[in-house]
Amino acid sequence: MTITRLIDLGKGEPQNSVLPLEYFRKAAEHRLALQDRTAFGYAPEQGWESLRVEMARFLTARSGLDVDPGELLVTSGASHGLDLILSHFTRPGDTIVVEDPTYFFALDIIRDRGVRVLPVPMDDDGLDVDALESLLATEHPRLLYSVPVFNNPMGTTLSPERRRRLVELAERHDFLIVADEVYQLLGDVTPPLRAAGGDRVLSLGSFSKIFAPGVRLGWVHADPRLLTRLLQDGELHSAGGASPVTGAIMESALALGLQDRFLDELSDHYHALRRHMIRALSDTLPPGLRFTPPDGGYYIWLPLPEHLDCAALLPEAEKAGLAYRPGSLFSMNGGSAHCMRLCFVHYDEPTLTEGCRRLAAFLRPRV
Amino acid sequence: MTITRLIDLGKGEPQNSVLPLEYFRKAAEHRLALQDRTAFGYAPEQGWESLRVEMARFLTARSGLDVDPGELLVTSGASHGLDLILSHFTRPGDTIVVEDPTYFFALDIIRDRGVRVLPVPMDDDGLDVDALESLLATEHPRLLYSVPVFNNPMGTTLSPERRRRLVELAERHDFLIVADEVYQLLGDVTPPLRAAGGDRVLSLGSFSKIFAPGVRLGWVHADPRLLTRLLQDGELHSAGGASPVTGAIMESALALGLQDRFLDELSDHYHALRRHMIRALSDTLPPGLRFTPPDGGYYIWLPLPEHLDCAALLPEAEKAGLAYRPGSLFSMNGGSAHCMRLCFVHYDEPTLTEGCRRLAAFLRPRV
Repeated sequence: MTITRLIDLGKGEPQNSVLPLEYFRKAAEHRLALQDRTAFGYAPEQGWESLRVEMARFLTARSGLDVDPGELLVTSGASHGLDLILSHFTRPGDTIVVEDPTYFFALDIIRDRGVRVLPVPMDDDGLDVDALESLLATEHPRLLYSVPVFNNPMGTTLSPERRRRLVELAERHDFLIVADEVYQLLGDVTPPLRAAGGDRVLSLGSFSKIFAPGVRLGWVHADPRLLTRLLQDGELHSAGGASPVTGAIMESALALGLQDRFLDELSDHYHALRRHMIRALSDTLPPGLRFTPPDGGYYIWLPLPEHLDCAALLPEAEKAGLAYRPGSLFSMNGGSAHCMRLCFVHYDEPTLTEGCRRLAAFLRPRV
Repeated sequence: MTITRLIDLGKGEPQNSVLPLEYFRKAAEHRLALQDRTAFGYAPEQGWESLRVEMARFLTARSGLDVDPGELLVTSGASHGLDLILSHFTRPGDTIVVEDPTYFFALDIIRDRGVRVLPVPMDDDGLDVDALESLLATEHPRLLYSVPVFNNPMGTTLSPERRRRLVELAERHDFLIVADEVYQLLGDVTPPLRAAGGDRVLSLGSFSKIFAPGVRLGWVHADPRLLTRLLQDGELHSAGGASPVTGAIMESALALGLQDRFLDELSDHYHALRRHMIRALSDTLPPGLRFTPPDGGYYIWLPLPEHLDCAALLPEAEKAGLAYRPGSLFSMNGGSAHCMRLCFVHYDEPTLTEGCRRLAAFLRPRV
């Protein structure tokens, strides 16, 4: 049998077919029919008030946290938000704490800044707060980067108890927390990290995960005193706010309820895919392999026996028509080498089934 | 008579009424009718090939320089381009040369980086290349930031002879030139700086000046070896290219000739406003005041007698219903204090007439 197409179970992107072109078209039609040219000019650095009002209403209804428009800064997406925060709250040589494993592109953005990066381990309840506390006995980080909900790559969510302790530690040891919460609305969870005490938490959000990556629009949700620092940004001043035109169109998508309707559909769709993938893995994986089923997000983290190196196995897997993301990719010191990240949102159910079948067949003789 | 409305002759933004909502609407309709969802996902870091092909075709036809799609990197605008270049070609402590005066928001973006900034004076032919050469005898800048065409704030254009010398100096002294050429297509000029020898020139372009600021889309035009460095950017990797959806819509605007048609209209409109403003100033300014009429762009630079401080005069001017940008704003060491930047694109002809009348009346007793 010839493998006709690689199934890349590691790819963390929505399927092309679910991208909301029709919703965007309706929102754009609505917005452009208003004959309001404002959005074609320069926007305020923080983003248009009317857009932030719609975003705050939407987030308050969806996240269970009371969000004020004055606490939102419009960005070109979560990565832009992270970059802004690093620009204005860190300097080269500062110490930054990251989870290990963590989102590898965030690690790249952080490394670009010439800072010192210290990893703290993760487990099924998210960041190991005990390990963080030990670290804080001798280290004085400026900032901690965390994906506290439906973690990328692990799929885990930080427990309520750990959330309280984490924000207490930030208070006591005077560091900021960047909470990358882009997956927040893709599952039922506890409210965002700011609900546990928000003075030192800058939350990153994005329409990339709940609408479409290509709109390049997101937000930082934080205390206005923290936002004030970000609003000093030279690039924001010069550019006149992030993405004013797509912002105006997304304002219509929010006001018309199109974002709500799409998110409901998307959540149902992802929920079905997640259940399907969990079932397919449980049914086919060789005995002895265990994974923690996630409650939302995009990802499943699969640990193999410790002697296996998933990066080294990848070329063979590809010959068998299969790919995944090796765990070492997400670690700044090559940890988690025996783990792999799988994603359940990039394919339809039959392809996920076939992908899991190939994965199980590939692993069976090796574990 | 009551001053009913402040006329801010300093404001460097197009009038709301000329912003191309209808052209954008047509381009969006065309693009979204294709039912192609690609642009709603992640784009390559460099931007979609098809967009870069249209941009290259447009720029080659308009700028007189043969532009290859492989030499273009899509950005969220010129400020994003400048920030990317500073991230990947400079480190804190590096020496950066800027023109004095220069675009003040660029100065902010550069200062954000913790670099050492050295000014080089300007005259009517642009950057004083002799002064630069003297500086290079003792200094080793990493990069020079220049607005070589329809300069902001001076309105001047670097002469062909100086262009050749500038790129020779960059070659000999091993520094890069960031050519902020966002006004390039708003007037008839010599080709972009890269035409004078482009290996060390990174040219910044933007649809902000030739279409609409709110689309937040621009480009870096440079040798692919230089672009390769920028493509290492962690934020670009994570975000998946700049503004894919507006990029796709602008691709349609380019392919359908809407950008060409709008730029023709805009150029005619700005040409008329420029002529009008030059005439209005010449007719009303007190004798003895001279300015160099620009050949394009947005700005007129007006020097007053040297003992006058335009920043100090501004509150009085505002009481007389008038504003401008004081020259010191554009200087890192408070130079050009006796100059002011005026802009001719933000108002219609009658308002420009009235603004110039107020300016002349305000200056008459003071010069």
